[in-house]
Amino acid sequence: MSVETVSLNRSHGGMQGVYKHSSRETGTGMTFSVYVPPHQDDAKLPVVWYLSGLTCTHANVTEKGEFRKTCAELGLVFVAPDTSPRGEGVPGDPAGAYDFGLGAGFFVDATQPPFARSYRMWSYVTKELPELIAGHFPVDPKRQSILGHSMGGHGALTIALSHPERYRAATAFSPIAAPSQVPWGIKALTGYLGDNREAWRKHDAVALIEDGARFPDFLIDCGDADPFLVEQLRPELLESACAKARIPHNFRLQRGYDHSYYFVSTFMADHLRWHAARLKA
Amino acid sequence: MSVETVSLNRSHGGMQGVYKHSSRETGTGMTFSVYVPPHQDDAKLPVVWYLSGLTCTHANVTEKGEFRKTCAELGLVFVAPDTSPRGEGVPGDPAGAYDFGLGAGFFVDATQPPFARSYRMWSYVTKELPELIAGHFPVDPKRQSILGHSMGGHGALTIALSHPERYRAATAFSPIAAPSQVPWGIKALTGYLGDNREAWRKHDAVALIEDGARFPDFLIDCGDADPFLVEQLRPELLESACAKARIPHNFRLQRGYDHSYYFVSTFMADHLRWHAARLKA
Repeated sequence: MSVETVSLNRSHGGMQGVYKHSSRETGTGMTFSVYVPPHQDDAKLPVVWYLSGLTCTHANVTEKGEFRKTCAELGLVFVAPDTSPRGEGVPGDPAGAYDFGLGAGFFVDATQPPFARSYRMWSYVTKELPELIAGHFPVDPKRQSILGHSMGGHGALTIALSHPERYRAATAFSPIAAPSQVPWGIKALTGYLGDNREAWRKHDAVALIEDGARFPDFLIDCGDADPFLVEQLRPELLESACAKARIPHNFRLQRGYDHSYYFVSTFMADHLRWHAARLKA
Repeated sequence: MSVETVSLNRSHGGMQGVYKHSSRETGTGMTFSVYVPPHQDDAKLPVVWYLSGLTCTHANVTEKGEFRKTCAELGLVFVAPDTSPRGEGVPGDPAGAYDFGLGAGFFVDATQPPFARSYRMWSYVTKELPELIAGHFPVDPKRQSILGHSMGGHGALTIALSHPERYRAATAFSPIAAPSQVPWGIKALTGYLGDNREAWRKHDAVALIEDGARFPDFLIDCGDADPFLVEQLRPELLESACAKARIPHNFRLQRGYDHSYYFVSTFMADHLRWHAARLKA
């Protein structure tokens, strides 16, 4: 696997890189970013995965996430993948909408034509990219954790619940907590996985918990001024699933905050400290 | 003077706003951003002015500057103006270059046609916008300070040296320290002010100091991997002018850092603490 360096900038004592590679899962070129904090030459560092929301690439959190200072202090590698395949021949939303197709891969392996060929973000994020990161960066694969925002919060939660042995922490900003029950999720899961709702349950955090999946604990932040809170995110469904399953959780509804990176960046350091405590335990 | 709110987002406990108004100085619509930290209802807060570099609008530092957390902690209002007039009828660089005209106003009042009508960034930043900010935001005009990046570092230094009674602190990232002596500056000062180099001296930090201008002290950060350091920025000329004039200064050449916001954001908190110490003295 070869990796092309797009850019490399010193920041907060470490190096912020952006990289490109040719993905076997998606059959396309894929771009991702990695922040490597200052470290000793032979160190193997814990790695935090960050999954982004609808319309985003790796760039949104890389530019606006305000994670580097805290990652430098705590010694965390921070990886931000793209949210879908892109490029020539990759089908998008038939009507050009923002909530399906390009920038909206929903972290599933699609089974439906014409998306099944390249929309394989589940396997990309859980298999291909972790192997590549382990092979090219100073990380300790035994110490991984995951977080995300909105659609990426959905991705982080479902991936963590499906791999509790791999990720030591999982947190989310404004996650799409129960995609099977909300318009964004119903559109995406139908489009990528078809009409059989049984196939959706592995990609719905609430359904996964109902079906027995467990994780040590969750930290979730939402803003009460988030315009998507009531119709699309529905964190209360996840909160009650966690309560019922006795999964320890800290759900915080933050007053006056919306869905933007102005919100995410405000609480990013809190999340990274939650991750570090569990990665270093 | 009326101000239109473009966006308003809660962040780090305060409010990040973006605003538009119709400028008498430039004769155009102008956009700027203001971060107001959490504060008591009747508080009048110190205000930090941030001037941006070539190609930038208010948005670059607003999105990538990582200033909000520290401004919230220190109780600082942070104002980021645009770097030039824009819009219909505003002339740009005849060849469409990035280093003159749109996004490159160099914080002067142009005297040369066709730029003299709208390129009045000196008066915009030192007169019109401060009045507007004082009228619309909870600031204490007796406690102002200024910083900037690259072309904006040039702006911050020249404005501070020309108004030492108004600004209590002045710092810069990678400033164009001696514009009369470098290609970017020579092109801009010729284009806006004409061939008479005497007229340039008020817009050159080194020349201002040579001509007797003084300021209590300066903090300057540059990166030694900055591709513009040797040809365009020349901080050593400012350093030696400060030394000769016995202006206290802290010039730091930061190892491995370049000209980007990955650099600026790394040292932003340091600069804001420098400002706060002087604004609150």
